[in-house]
Parts: sequence; structure tokens; C-alpha cells
Amino acid sequence: RSHFDYLSHKNIIRLPGLIDVHVHMREPGGEHKETWESGTQAALAGGITMLLAMPNTNPSIVDLESFAIVEERAKNNARCDYGIFVGASEENYKFAKQLASKACALKMYLNQTFTTLRMDKMDTWASHMASWPKSLPICAHAESRTTAAIILLAQLYERPIHICHVALREEIEIIKKAKERGIKVTCEVAPHHLFLCQDDIDSIGLKRSDVRPKLATKDDQNALWENMSVIDIFATDHAPHTLSEKQSDNPPPGFPGMETILPLLLTAVKNGRLTIEDIEMKMYENPRKIFKLPSQQETYVEVNLDEEWTLPQTKYFTKAGWSPFAGRKVSGKVLKVVLRGEVAFIDGVIMAKPGSGKDIKSLSRTILTPSPPPSLQSEATAAIL
Amino acid sequence: RSHFDYLSHKNIIRLPGLIDVHVHMREPGGEHKETWESGTQAALAGGITMLLAMPNTNPSIVDLESFAIVEERAKNNARCDYGIFVGASEENYKFAKQLASKACALKMYLNQTFTTLRMDKMDTWASHMASWPKSLPICAHAESRTTAAIILLAQLYERPIHICHVALREEIEIIKKAKERGIKVTCEVAPHHLFLCQDDIDSIGLKRSDVRPKLATKDDQNALWENMSVIDIFATDHAPHTLSEKQSDNPPPGFPGMETILPLLLTAVKNGRLTIEDIEMKMYENPRKIFKLPSQQETYVEVNLDEEWTLPQTKYFTKAGWSPFAGRKVSGKVLKVVLRGEVAFIDGVIMAKPGSGKDIKSLSRTILTPSPPPSLQSEATAAIL
Ligand SMILES: [Zn+2]
Ligand SMILES: [Zn+2]
Ligand SMILES: [Zn+2]
Ligand SMILES: [Zn+2]
Ligand SMILES: [Zn+2]
Ligand SMILES: [Zn+2]
Ligand SMILES: [Zn+2]
Ligand SMILES: [Zn+2]
Repeated sequence: RSHFDYLSHKNIIRLPGLIDVHVHMREPGGEHKETWESGTQAALAGGITMLLAMPNTNPSIVDLESFAIVEERAKNNARCDYGIFVGASEENYKFAKQLASKACALKMYLNQTFTTLRMDKMDTWASHMASWPKSLPICAHAESRTTAAIILLAQLYERPIHICHVALREEIEIIKKAKERGIKVTCEVAPHHLFLCQDDIDSIGLKRSDVRPKLATKDDQNALWENMSVIDIFATDHAPHTLSEKQSDNPPPGFPGMETILPLLLTAVKNGRLTIEDIEMKMYENPRKIFKLPSQQETYVEVNLDEEWTLPQTKYFTKAGWSPFAGRKVSGKVLKVVLRGEVAFIDGVIMAKPGSGKDIKSLSRTILTPSPPPSLQSEATAAIL
Repeated sequence: RSHFDYLSHKNIIRLPGLIDVHVHMREPGGEHKETWESGTQAALAGGITMLLAMPNTNPSIVDLESFAIVEERAKNNARCDYGIFVGASEENYKFAKQLASKACALKMYLNQTFTTLRMDKMDTWASHMASWPKSLPICAHAESRTTAAIILLAQLYERPIHICHVALREEIEIIKKAKERGIKVTCEVAPHHLFLCQDDIDSIGLKRSDVRPKLATKDDQNALWENMSVIDIFATDHAPHTLSEKQSDNPPPGFPGMETILPLLLTAVKNGRLTIEDIEMKMYENPRKIFKLPSQQETYVEVNLDEEWTLPQTKYFTKAGWSPFAGRKVSGKVLKVVLRGEVAFIDGVIMAKPGSGKDIKSLSRTILTPSPPPSLQSEATAAIL
């Protein structure tokens, strides 16, 4: 592949560096699944220049000590910018706020999933709500009725709440209704709930298709598309497990997603189901607003809208080594990623060095008044390069 | 026992006819557990002159046809006044409101319990909320986080919600917080959650002690007492199963409660944990307000506050034939119940005839402007008879 390729295409656009607010790095404790080194390569290859890393590592990120471990790994190995979540536990509601100056947000696990951090009692939810600074987000893994429950809690404690990976009609409809009533709730949807449903389990394979929240019905999937304006954010919930783990007797739930989200979304644009503005809004502007993220100067992604290809099963940067979307024909491919003035990814090759990624908290401190992103362009104004 | 007894006691008071808003009559379909004939005797013996009967019979009360069956049984057999719930199902949200003129309220089952009426999806909850008349109560079996979820739903659909049998600290605390924020939520607590906890399971027997919501921790029990002002109603959740059923391999959850609630509450008064006003408020005034119940003219209960006795295992009017409170020493006993001018119960003997009980909907129609109850007296003004 050469620069000649670029010149032969008419439909190359620039997007802002995408922000993925829901990524599982698996380090420490699951380095065979993903590391900061491999995961941030997957991010860049997917057009993602900033990601927020979840706290359900091993050990979980729940205190200064465990936070420091991940902070060090990220600082030395990340090739894109990042924030780090702190996990809410049954025990840490008194001191989690000590991490508020370092963490991007607090994550609450309220249902059974791949974590040891689950909190079953609303008392504990309430204690965290009362203690975590209102200036920083709280994100909740809260399925079905738990979505409604945590929205009420947040309202009673007079603070915003962000609902992770909405998957069901009942969830998106209650969020819609709550927003209409002025309740401060935001939400994200993962690509696998937008583009897959129970009908796809046979072709993905029963074991591989396990994920939390589970793939839902066609009606649930349709509800997400019907309520596109209610969805604030697209986030991958990139949750890599190796193929052999997924094929085992007790397959862990989760999909890789960072390298496939943008082609899937761009294909939906081509099919008239989304607009480029939807992508910019839900993977750049809203993540910045909701998570109060700093701007990345001179950062953008070049995408060829016309490139048609088939998502492969392997050949990704993620260590997962497989994709639930394998075999899908898509239209749209990341050509180049420029992060803070440096070419970080080009023509399938990672250029960014380990450790070149910055913690958003350090970016926040250096850039106090974020300027408008230089790279933000809608398709209407997209430069033909 | 003779009238001489009365004269020898100094501490006899009149209470209003008590209202129990949560009773399972088991007819049709479970006549060996309870009938309208036996259950309303148990009510009168317990000082209860009006009860609201739950819809999880067999068949369930979900439409005009099933409602008519129970209406007929009640009309012919009830010895105290009554209302009948209609049950919300996955199917009947379009036509449940046809029963609004006949039913006392709509009951929603949102957790696993002794019923076939459970609704798992918030879509269906919302459909019922949107359809059931706002002038009539909706009551929810909603445990733990489901309490918070249904409170949010009710708020979004701009209608009051009544939470049945609150049992956990997290439940009462969230209800307190919601009330403080002006959300229209009311709640009831059952005597077994006020007076029993997990520590009592050994002495009751593991199988017998099964109930929904389950007996909770001592801390949960304490939370109910600490938040007495948040509790709107005491309701028995009288849910009789026979002793042989309770001793079987698969014991059904539920306790009888109508004949034991008042002695238990009066004993708490004696111990300084409650006042007579609490009982009047939570078993008469608040039930009337929340369920918009008609007054019962010339209706009252005479109670001997000083009579000390031990709650027996048998010798109740309920067909259950056992009590989880057996062996408790209590202080306070129902001497006489007068219902609409007629002595309905006296000295352990039921005087009211089958069919003498009235449907509250017929009482509502005849008594358009309820007058203040003639029998309402606080202990301060209690007549020494
Ligand atoms: Zn090039
Ligand atoms: Zn090309
Ligand atoms: Zn999750
Ligand atoms: Zn996740
Ligand atoms: Zn007498
Ligand atoms: Zn006596
Ligand atoms: Zn119940
Ligand atoms: Zn019940």
C-alpha cells in the first residue's frame, strides 16, 4: 500500500481523534489478553487517540496502591492518550475520593459480570454517590431495572450518572424518559449491541458470543437505532479474551472492539443509518463534555470512506486474536492517525512509541482552556486530500 | 371468659377498625390454605375490619372473568369489609383499567415470589403506569434495587407508587430519601420484618421461615425501627400455607399474620418502641388516605392493653394452622370488634355472619362524604370501659 492509494480516492475525510470511554486493558493480571502496549496499538489502528481504562484488572483499581501500578504501566507503555477509572467497591467508599485528582471517573459494577467489584446493596451505591466529587463522572454497569434504580439514586444524590453499554429497549426508553424530565443521565452504546443481536449467536458461535450485557433481541437492537438521539456516546467496551479462553468450557464474557468500531459506524453512514456528525458527536464531542476531557492539539484521523473490505478474524493489534464481527463487509478504513502533531498510525503501521501516550490528567493541567479541536470536520467540509 | 373480665381491667381502649391492605385469601385455587370465610374470621379476631385481598389466586385476578369469580366468593362469604386487587400481567395492561371501578388497586409483582404474575421488563411496568387510572393506587412487590427502579418509573409517569412489605435497610433508606425529595412514594412494613430477622430462623424452623421478602438481617430489622416515621402502613402480608406444605421438600413462602399483628404492635407500645398513635396512623388513617378507602360507620375494636399471653402455635381462625410468632409473650388482646354497629367478634367468638362484609366499592358509593370515624381514640383519651 502506498501514497498512490490516497490519490486514487475521492472520499477521504478527517475526523477528530476518537475517544473511547470504555476499554478493558487487562493489565495487570491479564497480560495475555491485552496490555497497555498492545491495547493502545489497537486503539490507534481503530482511530482512537484517547481511551478510558476500566478498573476491573487483577488486582482491581480500588486504592492508591493499585492505581499506582496501572498508572506506571500506562505511563511507560501507552501509545495513545488515556484516563484511568477507579472502581467502586463495598469497602472503598470512604477513600475512593483520594484518587479523584488522578482518576478519570468512578466505575460502579451493579450486575454480575467479569469483575470482583460488584456491589449488591444500594446502601453502598449511596455511600459512593455521597462521597465521590460531583465534578467527576460516575459510570455504572447497570442492566435492566438496575438502570432505573441507579438513575433514581443519582437523582436523589443530586449528581449526574453515566450508564454504560445500554443494550435493551427498556433501558434506552427509561433513559429517554428520564432525560425528558430533566434528570442528569447520559449513556453509551457498544458496537456489538448496535450491530449484533441474538440472531447472530449461531454464526459467531455460542461460546464466543457471550458478553455482558448479553446480545439482546432484534427488538432491543432496533430500539437502540430508533432512539439514536438518546445515545450520547458510542464506546467499544473493548473486553478482550483470547480465542482459547472463549472456546473453553467456561468462556469469559467480552469482545474486542476498538479496531472494528469505526468501519462499522462508517458503513452505517454509507447505508444512511447514521451521519458523520453522529460519529463526531458520540465519539468526540459528547465524551469530552461528559467526562470533561482535555483537547488533544493537532490530533485527527484520516479515513477513506470508500474502501470496502471484510473484517478479518485475525490480524488485529489486540491480543484477543479474534472478532465477533469477522466476515462482515464494511466500507471505510482508517488511513492515518495524527496524535498531537505526530503521525501515530499510517497505512496499517503503528508509528507511536510506547510511553508517548499522555495521561489526560497531565494534559488537563497543561492545557487549562481547551481550544476547539483543529481536526473537527463534518463530511460537508471534509477536505479531499 | 366473661364480662367480669372486662371490669377487672383498667387498661381497655378503643381503636378504630383496623385496615389491612395486604392479605392473601387463597380463594379460588387454594381453599385448603384459606377461604373468604376463614380468612375474614381471622381478620376480625385480629381487630381488622377491612382488608384488601391480593390477586395471586388461581386463577389470578387479571380480567373481568377472574375478578367476577372472587367478587362472588367474597360477597357470599366475607365477614369483614374488603377490597379486591387486580393483578398486573405481561398481557393485561390494555384492559386492566376496565376493572378500575371494581378493584381497590393494581398490584405489580416485580420479583420472584408465590405468584404467576411476575413482570420482568420495565416496558410492561411502564405500560401499566401509563394505563391504570392515576386516581387509584399501584402497589409493587419490589425488593432491593427494584424498589428504586419502580419509584423512578412512577415519578417519570407522574403517579404515586406504594411499596409493599419493605424489609431492607437499603429499601427504607431510599424511600426516605425519595420522600424528602417530594417523590410520591408510600410504603408498608409487615410484622414479620418488624419483629423477626434471620436470627429467628433456627427457632422458627428453616422451612417454615421461608417468606418473600426473606427475613433479613438484624441491621435491616433495626433500620425499619429507626425509620418508623418513614413507614406509612403496617400490613400483614397474611400469606397462609398449611403446616404440612411448609414442612414439605419445597415449602412455599409466606406467613399467616392477621391474628398476631395487633398483640405484637401493642407489646411494642408497652415496651416504649411504638405509640398507640403509630398504630392508628399506620393501620387506619394512612391506609384510608393512600387507598382512598371509605369510612366504616360505628366501627371499632376494644383492646385490653394489660392482658399478657403467649401467642400459640395453633387455635387460630386461619386455616394455616401455625404461626411464626408462636411462643412469643405479648401484652394486649382484642376483646371485641364492632363493625358498622354490629358486634362482629367478642371474647374469642366470631359473631359476624358470612356475607355480612361489604365491598369497599359499594361502601364508597353509599357514603360519599366519609365522616370522621366514631371509634378513633388515642390512648390519651381512651375510655376506661
Ligand atoms: Zn500514506
Ligand atoms: Zn484504497
Ligand atoms: Zn460492563
Ligand atoms: Zn466493560
Ligand atoms: Zn363482653
Ligand atoms: Zn383478662
Ligand atoms: Zn409480595
Ligand atoms: Zn403478599
